[in-house]
Amino acid sequence: MYDGIVQELIDEFGRLPGIGPKSAQRITFHILQTPDFDVARLGHLLAEVRDKVRFCEVCGNVSEQDRCVICRDPRRSLSVICVVEDAKDVSAIERTREFRGLYHVLGGAISPIGGIGPDDLRITQLMQRLADGTVQEVILATNPNLEGEATATYLSRLLRSLEITVTRLASGLPVGGDLEYADEVTLGRAFEGRRTV
Amino acid sequence: MYDGIVQELIDEFGRLPGIGPKSAQRITFHILQTPDFDVARLGHLLAEVRDKVRFCEVCGNVSEQDRCVICRDPRRSLSVICVVEDAKDVSAIERTREFRGLYHVLGGAISPIGGIGPDDLRITQLMQRLADGTVQEVILATNPNLEGEATATYLSRLLRSLEITVTRLASGLPVGGDLEYADEVTLGRAFEGRRTV
Repeated sequence: MYDGIVQELIDEFGRLPGIGPKSAQRITFHILQTPDFDVARLGHLLAEVRDKVRFCEVCGNVSEQDRCVICRDPRRSLSVICVVEDAKDVSAIERTREFRGLYHVLGGAISPIGGIGPDDLRITQLMQRLADGTVQEVILATNPNLEGEATATYLSRLLRSLEITVTRLASGLPVGGDLEYADEVTLGRAFEGRRTV
Repeated sequence: MYDGIVQELIDEFGRLPGIGPKSAQRITFHILQTPDFDVARLGHLLAEVRDKVRFCEVCGNVSEQDRCVICRDPRRSLSVICVVEDAKDVSAIERTREFRGLYHVLGGAISPIGGIGPDDLRITQLMQRLADGTVQEVILATNPNLEGEATATYLSRLLRSLEITVTRLASGLPVGGDLEYADEVTLGRAFEGRRTV
């Protein structure tokens, strides 16, 4: 409907998750009609993110260095690891300020329908981190839905042989939901009330 | 919450209209976690849009040339001009395929509260286009809300002295709404049923 580039940019924004054609158009016109909108900055950040951001070699969180800010922080407790599905969940938990240990990002959850098995997740790396006996508690903070529960059950069985306390976030999180969308208070309560599996 | 660049890109997306912090995070992680996501293409389009896209010197629509695709199209009728608030409205009306004339983009609507008066709109340019007597009908397609109605009333009084039929889009558009969000059928009906002011 528009001249070439404008429509191309609308289409490109429309490919991003959660942006429909109307939003894509609105964003494109905002950029066009805002004289001081810094397209160079947005373009630069896109390139930088692709160039410089990788995943922490220890926990799998996003990072600009080999190890992420949390793994590098000497004030964090080395004795507790919180296992999450996705790097976005690390940020959600950090916002609660309830947790001062380390993280382990699995990179997903077990899903027979989605064709994702334990071997597709960063479980071997988790077991390696637990091998030296430093870690005394593993908190399973996978999403409170079918795949997350299946993953937590799988991990709790796997960790049973080790002398490590394994806990799961307390109920209080709405079942069937997405951890990423929980509010800080609910997620904080869930941390306080975590129970041994 | 995140290492530098990731948070900067989240913040930058969050500045776009209709994108909240959660969506901004989702988009950023989508870009990070999709190996074949073409950041270079998005960055390139952003720069191109800023460099090459301007506004049609005749009608004010977006264009990559001095005159837009509609003003350049020899098949469009020169005797009817449809006056809209915004370039997005041109695209909405084009989708109805009801209109084969030309457009005139005002660049907003009269709004005493917003501090926008007639002098802030492209009304002088409209009067210049009407001066040579080619145009026989002006369709006032401003939004069916307070500002749009005020603008239509202002223009219909201004055009009364000229020998031009002035029409307003038919009721059928939901009052208080935004023309940009009307569906094709409703907008098409409104075109068919336009009445003399």
